[in-house]
Amino acid sequence: MLEYSIGVDLGGTNLRAAAVDRDGKILEKHAQSTDMTRGRDEVIADIVSGINTVRQKIGSSSKLAGVGIGVPGFILIEKGFVTNSNNLPVLENFPLRDEIERLLGAPIILENDANAAALGEKWMGAGKQVDDLVLLTLGTGIGGGIICGGRVLHGAVGMAAELGHITIDPNGNPCGCGNFGCLEKIASATAVEAMADMMSLGDHLNSVQVYELALDGNEKARMIFHQMGWALGVGLANLINIFNYPLYLLSGGMLPAWEMFAPTMMEEIRKRSFTFRSTPTRVEQATLGNQAGLIGAAYLPYLAQKL
Amino acid sequence: MLEYSIGVDLGGTNLRAAAVDRDGKILEKHAQSTDMTRGRDEVIADIVSGINTVRQKIGSSSKLAGVGIGVPGFILIEKGFVTNSNNLPVLENFPLRDEIERLLGAPIILENDANAAALGEKWMGAGKQVDDLVLLTLGTGIGGGIICGGRVLHGAVGMAAELGHITIDPNGNPCGCGNFGCLEKIASATAVEAMADMMSLGDHLNSVQVYELALDGNEKARMIFHQMGWALGVGLANLINIFNYPLYLLSGGMLPAWEMFAPTMMEEIRKRSFTFRSTPTRVEQATLGNQAGLIGAAYLPYLAQKL
Repeated sequence: MLEYSIGVDLGGTNLRAAAVDRDGKILEKHAQSTDMTRGRDEVIADIVSGINTVRQKIGSSSKLAGVGIGVPGFILIEKGFVTNSNNLPVLENFPLRDEIERLLGAPIILENDANAAALGEKWMGAGKQVDDLVLLTLGTGIGGGIICGGRVLHGAVGMAAELGHITIDPNGNPCGCGNFGCLEKIASATAVEAMADMMSLGDHLNSVQVYELALDGNEKARMIFHQMGWALGVGLANLINIFNYPLYLLSGGMLPAWEMFAPTMMEEIRKRSFTFRSTPTRVEQATLGNQAGLIGAAYLPYLAQKL
Repeated sequence: MLEYSIGVDLGGTNLRAAAVDRDGKILEKHAQSTDMTRGRDEVIADIVSGINTVRQKIGSSSKLAGVGIGVPGFILIEKGFVTNSNNLPVLENFPLRDEIERLLGAPIILENDANAAALGEKWMGAGKQVDDLVLLTLGTGIGGGIICGGRVLHGAVGMAAELGHITIDPNGNPCGCGNFGCLEKIASATAVEAMADMMSLGDHLNSVQVYELALDGNEKARMIFHQMGWALGVGLANLINIFNYPLYLLSGGMLPAWEMFAPTMMEEIRKRSFTFRSTPTRVEQATLGNQAGLIGAAYLPYLAQKL
């Protein structure tokens, strides 16, 4: 009997799901909007219905190995709880995994969305050739995922890889996490937009507009991406010195600005990391785009079988 | 037949070796000075003779499982080479492991000394109850060791855990590694002494003298330990956000100054790490002192058997 898994990427406004075979091939896909302002039971029923839609498309001639769900926020792995999720407050502090498992009648694995993306890149993307890698997702915030020996590094409760909160400048901008000068306060889309505002560059430009100005040669806009690249360089040099892994990947909405921030980033890394200079270390763009989380989530049930 | 392993702690001026049983009990010990200014063959003969001294003390009624050697410097794990060791230049870039193995007729495992110390603390010290921990050794420099799933995290070639070179202040003091504001440029004994000099605190005081002044209430000396604690706090908050491990240990020659730097350190960690505030995370003193590396090195052959 053919076996497949279902990967789910659960966001604040959308749910995407895909049936994926053991070779990483997407067999069926489904997307729907999710209304997180509704009650918990309704939201969970929606998630289950989305998963069942994919299941029905595949039909009963194949066997469902399990379902992996990538969720923005911290996952308490053992309990199967989501906690501190800005996007999904309605699902917090509740036995989410067990409840979906009950309604669906299939094994569920929850995972942080950036961890799932890192795992997806390891399985089918830029990290296929390695067992150890670090991923930074550059979006409105900065997320991180660490793959160690082919598996997600979870730490004690599942909160590892909060790489957006590496300190770059200990006296820098305050961060909601309590720290100052976090990486995501200098190198996220939100930070790029805030720097543009601080420089009176247009009227509340978004990060794409700042990027376009930089492309046009605007010096202020270029300074912003220089600063972004500098912060990424300091942070990545730290990670390289800590892990000595062969591969560090960047992904997310800011990735298309690579040419604007990467030269400064690479220069800082080279300067600041002895390990980078003396071992083969690649810092590259992730290749799966916004499919990474979906693919990584779908890999979770297969990986669990290997335990 | 009883089995034992031999752990060796190889320094720039001393060699210590111990025979250790499977329960971590030290059966025999040996120490000798090493003269690293002599030729490579003589130095290696000395090392082998030190190991054989312990072997003879145990006698041939027990079986030698193997020998672990902790070495200051980078170890290229697969090759069995030592590289970039300030203390042992005579042994660099040479098949050290294979040569000792040949002369001794017993399996040898090389390991970085801070990694060995971290493993020792995991096996028999403050980390006995956990499988994941990070160790910082506070000496003339700052070394690091990361234990992940009960084993040393090596990275691609064995250079992981260069934790003395985490960036604390990206525009801080220049470091020989090429970076600026490395942890060891603010929180090592050398940094404490340099800060004392910069503040004209006595005439080239050593770190113990600076500590004694701080104990006596000297405000300048206290500022120095405050700065040391601040830097350790920034660095440990980073490590906690990256790993979410249950345990972070400090050891080394500066550890006795704990009461002077720890309050500031803990305050910074609490402030800067959301993960610290929301998960059970311990930051503590290592307990094996300068035995940690010896014990950890002796554990390496047993651990290799478990592969």
